[in-house]
Amino acid sequence: MVWFRRHKQPTARESQAWMTTRRIESLTDGVVAIALTLLVLNLEVPKVPVKYSSLVKALIKLSPQLYDYAIAFLVLSSFWAAHHRQFFVYKRADNGLLWINVLDLMLIALIPFTVSLMGEFRSLQPAALAFELNILLIGLVKYWQWSYATKDRRLVDTDFSDKEIERGRRINMVSPAISLAAIAISFISPSYSTTIYLVTPFVISRLRRY
Amino acid sequence: MVWFRRHKQPTARESQAWMTTRRIESLTDGVVAIALTLLVLNLEVPKVPVKYSSLVKALIKLSPQLYDYAIAFLVLSSFWAAHHRQFFVYKRADNGLLWINVLDLMLIALIPFTVSLMGEFRSLQPAALAFELNILLIGLVKYWQWSYATKDRRLVDTDFSDKEIERGRRINMVSPAISLAAIAISFISPSYSTTIYLVTPFVISRLRRY
Amino acid sequence: MVWFRRHKQPTARESQAWMTTRRIESLTDGVVAIALTLLVLNLEVPKVPVKYSSLVKALIKLSPQLYDYAIAFLVLSSFWAAHHRQFFVYKRADNGLLWINVLDLMLIALIPFTVSLMGEFRSLQPAALAFELNILLIGLVKYWQWSYATKDRRLVDTDFSDKEIERGRRINMVSPAISLAAIAISFISPSYSTTIYLVTPFVISRLRRY
Amino acid sequence: MVWFRRHKQPTARESQAWMTTRRIESLTDGVVAIALTLLVLNLEVPKVPVKYSSLVKALIKLSPQLYDYAIAFLVLSSFWAAHHRQFFVYKRADNGLLWINVLDLMLIALIPFTVSLMGEFRSLQPAALAFELNILLIGLVKYWQWSYATKDRRLVDTDFSDKEIERGRRINMVSPAISLAAIAISFISPSYSTTIYLVTPFVISRLRRY
Repeated sequence: MVWFRRHKQPTARESQAWMTTRRIESLTDGVVAIALTLLVLNLEVPKVPVKYSSLVKALIKLSPQLYDYAIAFLVLSSFWAAHHRQFFVYKRADNGLLWINVLDLMLIALIPFTVSLMGEFRSLQPAALAFELNILLIGLVKYWQWSYATKDRRLVDTDFSDKEIERGRRINMVSPAISLAAIAISFISPSYSTTIYLVTPFVISRLRRY
Repeated sequence: MVWFRRHKQPTARESQAWMTTRRIESLTDGVVAIALTLLVLNLEVPKVPVKYSSLVKALIKLSPQLYDYAIAFLVLSSFWAAHHRQFFVYKRADNGLLWINVLDLMLIALIPFTVSLMGEFRSLQPAALAFELNILLIGLVKYWQWSYATKDRRLVDTDFSDKEIERGRRINMVSPAISLAAIAISFISPSYSTTIYLVTPFVISRLRRY
Repeated sequence: MVWFRRHKQPTARESQAWMTTRRIESLTDGVVAIALTLLVLNLEVPKVPVKYSSLVKALIKLSPQLYDYAIAFLVLSSFWAAHHRQFFVYKRADNGLLWINVLDLMLIALIPFTVSLMGEFRSLQPAALAFELNILLIGLVKYWQWSYATKDRRLVDTDFSDKEIERGRRINMVSPAISLAAIAISFISPSYSTTIYLVTPFVISRLRRY
Repeated sequence: MVWFRRHKQPTARESQAWMTTRRIESLTDGVVAIALTLLVLNLEVPKVPVKYSSLVKALIKLSPQLYDYAIAFLVLSSFWAAHHRQFFVYKRADNGLLWINVLDLMLIALIPFTVSLMGEFRSLQPAALAFELNILLIGLVKYWQWSYATKDRRLVDTDFSDKEIERGRRINMVSPAISLAAIAISFISPSYSTTIYLVTPFVISRLRRY
């Protein structure tokens, strides 16, 4: 239990005993919460003359941005759920985990930027590509983190089963695969290439059964 | 207790044992705290010539925005209190709860946008309507979450009483009902239709007695 | 202990047993952290021609804003320290505490706005007055909260001494008193009236000895 | 354990028993998470005509800002890791620690500003200097905090070894030393002077072995 360790002196062998998963989780929850909430800043209040009909029209025109907001919110939330799931099985933390997690956060904090890029340049492929590359990289970092933590049961229980490790690995491959598909589609239709992310939760919940 | 579960291996039956209410609460507290604090960004520093009397006038002109700020802050806080209340009785979390909660957060993070819409287009009904629809949807999601969690005692104690479940259901109907009333009023007076939200705490504290 | 209560069914007498000080603290920490960090948005990157000497001059011109930043950061932090101190002795929470705390947060989230007002209208008394009224109101809410929580030992231990309650009351009077002094000074010198807040920690640490 | 202390009455000797490292950690995690996420606001969506090739060019032009983003993210994260490490060995908190921590947060919350200054005035030495001074001051405050907490074992275990204290002191000297080097380099090449911060983790992990 995290709280008790605090009262022990770190020994030579436990040179990284100061590291707790609890605070890494807390920093991550903070960064994700802020990135989620900053997404709304891409919804600009329309600058229209104060007339009933023109306001309604302006709000309807915002629907692509609302759609991007929803997609990005779901993608970001599913990464958070993955973090939640993975950190539940990590019993320890070490420097490697901390820095892989920092890299993860660095890419997560970029999302509000790549989403606003998509909002501004809706029909251009490089804008969609920037967002999808961003998501692809986060997926790869998550995969790396899982491999790092489970290799030789580094941060998980010694009796954590091979089957579970393998299952986690497969689940972590879903997101990069979908990002690659989205990138392929973006060359045909940039605006709708992100829709494919909506299938992520269904694929993952199916994989979790085996 | 959450901390002990961490040391157990998830069994087949507990396939979602990795999910903790603790981190869902922590993400929610983060998103609500940021949404609350972003509300202040709607209060723009007036651009007036640097003169005593014109500054005072400019500040007085901000009072409708301050009023919106207070209403939105109270409505958002009462949703947070409801979240707090509901999650207190949830003893477990599962995927369903997590995603209903994500939907809830997606709508909560929209509030700073719909509030700024009201601030900009004070006298127009669609602006008030957007805010009230936002609040209505959050109320419905909260109702859904409670039904989901208490159905067959899915996430609550097995001896959690029917009476308590029914009481929670009634309390969760208050907010959608008030939002419908606010929407009705908005067709008559958009600017003052949100005032009705001030009665929410009184209605809820009365219902809690039975 | 908070974690154990979760497993008990709330009885009729404990109708507010769902309320925990833990989550009120967590929401408050979030709002304070964001308000603190938003203060930096008042430091605008100067728009000057790209020349060495003009950049240095522009940065020196920012010093009043940096001074406001430091004062506001310290005042806000001392309110957070007071919150920390008061919530440490509260053993329970109830609806009254929750809503007084919401009012507190509503005023705390206003600080970035009143600080930016001061930054914009440095030499005008209403700008300083707005900030100082903001701080005065927070001080009064803190005083109210303490009185509410300690009245008939409502939320504190039954053996919490009268002397401690009285001492807490005196400490909570420091901040409103200093705000009144600052308001008085603002009629003479608006720009420097906030300097008096720097004495707060010294007065409080002195009072804590008796 | 933090949770149990809550139920004790603070005695005369424990006059600062209300202070918990837990909430100082939670406020710090919040401020760091927000500062990290605000860094992205320096990446401005380019204002270019909606053409494929000009968007690609505009994104390539952003690379210096992306580079600053990465450096600042890593520096800030390594301060957070240091905070995490130091607070792990603090068993108590007191007023001194709290206020040194507030000073630390005040400087950390400035980072988004000094980074945006660098982004705007890339080739000018005062901009790089402002960022590097900011980092230098944070490093010195961290050093001060460690000295304060370990002096006469003020906040650490009574059997915390002199060797550990000395090692912590050496590790805390790395960041100020690198900042001084960066400042020296900034007189030759402002734009690339921050690159040296990338060596920090390697130096620290080496020092931790002895």
